Amino acid sequence: MKKEIIVYSVSDSLGGTSQRLLSAVTAQYPDLIFNNSYRFPFVSQEEELLDILKDAVKDDALVISTLVNGKLAALARDFSQTHHLAYLDLMYPFFQLIEQKTGTSPIEVPGTLHRLDSEYFNKISAIEFAVKYDDGKAPQGFLEADLILLGVSRTSKTPLSIFLANKGYRVANLPLIPQVPLPQTLDKVGKKRIIGLICEPEKLAKIRSNRLHSLGLTNSTSYTDLEKIYQELDYSKEVFKKYQAHVINITDKSIEETAFLIEDYMKKLK
Amino acid sequence: MKKEIIVYSVSDSLGGTSQRLLSAVTAQYPDLIFNNSYRFPFVSQEEELLDILKDAVKDDALVISTLVNGKLAALARDFSQTHHLAYLDLMYPFFQLIEQKTGTSPIEVPGTLHRLDSEYFNKISAIEFAVKYDDGKAPQGFLEADLILLGVSRTSKTPLSIFLANKGYRVANLPLIPQVPLPQTLDKVGKKRIIGLICEPEKLAKIRSNRLHSLGLTNSTSYTDLEKIYQELDYSKEVFKKYQAHVINITDKSIEETAFLIEDYMKKLK
Repeated sequence: MKKEIIVYSVSDSLGGTSQRLLSAVTAQYPDLIFNNSYRFPFVSQEEELLDILKDAVKDDALVISTLVNGKLAALARDFSQTHHLAYLDLMYPFFQLIEQKTGTSPIEVPGTLHRLDSEYFNKISAIEFAVKYDDGKAPQGFLEADLILLGVSRTSKTPLSIFLANKGYRVANLPLIPQVPLPQTLDKVGKKRIIGLICEPEKLAKIRSNRLHSLGLTNSTSYTDLEKIYQELDYSKEVFKKYQAHVINITDKSIEETAFLIEDYMKKLK
Repeated sequence: MKKEIIVYSVSDSLGGTSQRLLSAVTAQYPDLIFNNSYRFPFVSQEEELLDILKDAVKDDALVISTLVNGKLAALARDFSQTHHLAYLDLMYPFFQLIEQKTGTSPIEVPGTLHRLDSEYFNKISAIEFAVKYDDGKAPQGFLEADLILLGVSRTSKTPLSIFLANKGYRVANLPLIPQVPLPQTLDKVGKKRIIGLICEPEKLAKIRSNRLHSLGLTNSTSYTDLEKIYQELDYSKEVFKKYQAHVINITDKSIEETAFLIEDYMKKLK
């Protein structure tokens, strides 16, 4: 039987940061079960915090904290030491190093990561843009886009557009289909703004076949036929050449990896 | 003049985790500038790592690491101690606590967070679902959705759908417009799957007015008129009552906060 670790997450905001770090950590322990259902957001009172920590002791839990309130964080540290509680403060080591380097203290305002500032509104607007200009729905969006993703069906254009939107980029995408003429707007797009997505034909056939199964359909030959896929990919490569697209091979890459490569390319353009 | 801190991020994968934590930390220092352009992903060789750390010493940088390779991480720790480099390992304290608690060591495989497993494919599929069933485009999607978001224009239905999709929920959304009849599919939706979004009328008027400006339009009275907005919101409340929707007030909340409340509601349903 796999061992289980109960994890308590304590935050004076939503606790999203500790969830992210926890995902990275737990991925390193395939043989352990992490019970992560004990999340305590918006903690602001000492008594409340102490009650949580006492429960954590009873549960023999691992406690992770992103408290930014210095008094609460110190209380949790002291309590954990006295009660031999496995406790990890994700913010405090940073605060200490920055204090040493600059003499500056944190403002200790919870939830500043979620403040409704211009960066936030830009991100929201980029997400709306990506949804609106997905799948070549409205090619006029190409002219406003930071990036246009081109690729044949199932080269992950939609999730990539959304993922890059989360980072603030305005991304439109267009599926390449040999029989369908390209929108003229594409000729007016600023230089270096076009990304071409390719994939190994065998892998693409498999992805498409899985896709049809998940939709409850049987194999449609023209969609999953390797010969046809070769033709589609050849056509897409011609298009990429014509528009001098920056080409990325998505085979066996996660969306995060491909997005990273695109962001890297964008940064070098500036 | 604001003080600048140069931050080096070292990872044997993409380094997305350290970026997330860094955002939370830097938000606590409005009076400091964090230069975060030194990102070193996919570090796998000792020499490469030492070169990076030597540069960090020259730049008087703060180094954060999410290295999972124990040998590389130990090298970086030793080097930093010897050279008085401000160095923060985000993974190691976790690894130590888990070792103490369970005797288990991490597998030290980089990039496991991005592995192409069923959870990953579920997330991608949820993102595609949200884009496909955005804005009431195809009400048949309601029957497959985990959640349907209803609300008048500018109650953040689209970004909320996408944000929840990132967490694996299949979310459709439908704009409520008094003159437009509701799709019949809504009557067949499973109990408790409908979320109603409301907003204070004055705030909504302001959001809509900003929206029109960002589109380069002057104020359209029927869209931003407070009287009309009251009517729209009254209508939406009637709809929420009819479908016994779980109602959330989005006024002054970030997408993350509203998504958190919806996720919390979903978890309690189970």
